Amino acid sequence: MEKLTIVKVGGKIVEEPNSLKQLLSDFSKISGFKVLVHGGGRSATSLASQLGIESKMVNGRRITDKEMLKVVTMVYGGLVNKQIVAGLQAIGVNGLGLSGCDLNYMRSEKRPVTDVDYGYVGDVKEVNAGILVDLILKGVVPVLAPLTHDNAGNLLNTNADTIASEAAKALSAFFDVTLMYCFEKKGVLLNESDDESVISELTPSLFKKYIADKTIQGGMIPKLENSFEALKAGVKQVLITRADLIYIDGGTTVIL
Amino acid sequence: MEKLTIVKVGGKIVEEPNSLKQLLSDFSKISGFKVLVHGGGRSATSLASQLGIESKMVNGRRITDKEMLKVVTMVYGGLVNKQIVAGLQAIGVNGLGLSGCDLNYMRSEKRPVTDVDYGYVGDVKEVNAGILVDLILKGVVPVLAPLTHDNAGNLLNTNADTIASEAAKALSAFFDVTLMYCFEKKGVLLNESDDESVISELTPSLFKKYIADKTIQGGMIPKLENSFEALKAGVKQVLITRADLIYIDGGTTVIL
Repeated sequence: MEKLTIVKVGGKIVEEPNSLKQLLSDFSKISGFKVLVHGGGRSATSLASQLGIESKMVNGRRITDKEMLKVVTMVYGGLVNKQIVAGLQAIGVNGLGLSGCDLNYMRSEKRPVTDVDYGYVGDVKEVNAGILVDLILKGVVPVLAPLTHDNAGNLLNTNADTIASEAAKALSAFFDVTLMYCFEKKGVLLNESDDESVISELTPSLFKKYIADKTIQGGMIPKLENSFEALKAGVKQVLITRADLIYIDGGTTVIL
Repeated sequence: MEKLTIVKVGGKIVEEPNSLKQLLSDFSKISGFKVLVHGGGRSATSLASQLGIESKMVNGRRITDKEMLKVVTMVYGGLVNKQIVAGLQAIGVNGLGLSGCDLNYMRSEKRPVTDVDYGYVGDVKEVNAGILVDLILKGVVPVLAPLTHDNAGNLLNTNADTIASEAAKALSAFFDVTLMYCFEKKGVLLNESDDESVISELTPSLFKKYIADKTIQGGMIPKLENSFEALKAGVKQVLITRADLIYIDGGTTVIL
């Protein structure tokens, strides 16, 4: 199978013109087929605040009422997505911005209300990879916004990490998929205060050990749990690295 | 050649949930291949106003400074476009929302400053129809937002009527194209105060006559001039009709 790299970048990098430009240049250097997944939370929070809409977060997830859904649809599906695609076209990469409703490529269901009502937030139920595969094989680079739809007319806010891992799992039937999560460090660190102490390879047994001795904690735990889940679903490898290192070796490789 | 219908609808209809739902239902009844082109000016003006950004219009065209460009990118490329696509998917129409940067399908250049500086407004220079044709033949319905790009990283605000006519002209090499402009009347009227006095067929000579005797005036003149230009460039017919009549015969047919 041919190689496909799915790069997920957070909001901070894609929301500043200079860092976005650098990122897109680095991204264009990745050889083979590619997909880019982006966030945009800071811009959403900023627009919401300008509109007098309060941003409420629970467990790092945004509570999305009707007004906030409009904000994220504008920011993720419009502003951030189209700026990335325009930036890619400028350097000869044939980007195509997609939200889950486009081509019905990613369907979700509104998250059930439990102790928390997240509002218009979607849990992914179905990825229609076929039409994406056709486009990718023609050289198109899908640029995925963190929005899905319920196929009943409603858009739903969906975590960008989840978009990336669900797309990676579905595309694994067609490609050797590398899923790359960019964050602010060079990889998962052995020692939080030493930026060079990157764990080069992480297996499930090492992961358990590092959780037990508190080397790995906080938000990195669900990110890695999702990575192992993606690997079990057919993704070839997961890389956790810094955005400026995406086209060179390095970072933490998560394997089974 | 197979038939393709390109429907352009203004902002008013697509910005209200009920009228949008009706429109999409009517649109889905058009047989054959389809493209939908939308505006969104009212929502853009409303968001701009909430953000304290003044909307300046010259000759019915929006002056688009940096801040206004962000507003229209959010509203046209995000909010309106994705709501339409989600609404189409809900009724089994495989919509794909596109701004000009997506697939580099429509390239423009920033309008030169003359007596008016329109700001980030694009004049269309190139339509790459090939990849659209592939998608259309697969049953995909492109939903075109009134945004283009300059292929140098900049998005540009572009009149939706122009998007529709440029797409129609380019797609005429591959399909028998009907270009349909929806507005609030049943067609071009012989008598402004009689909504039933629709001119069923308009030729260049009739058009000249009606301009001379002031039957046709104002904003309808450039719309019809553009229609004749599209016909000369290969578009099969142009229809001017009311949005609720798009799937039945009627309206004004503009022919050479």
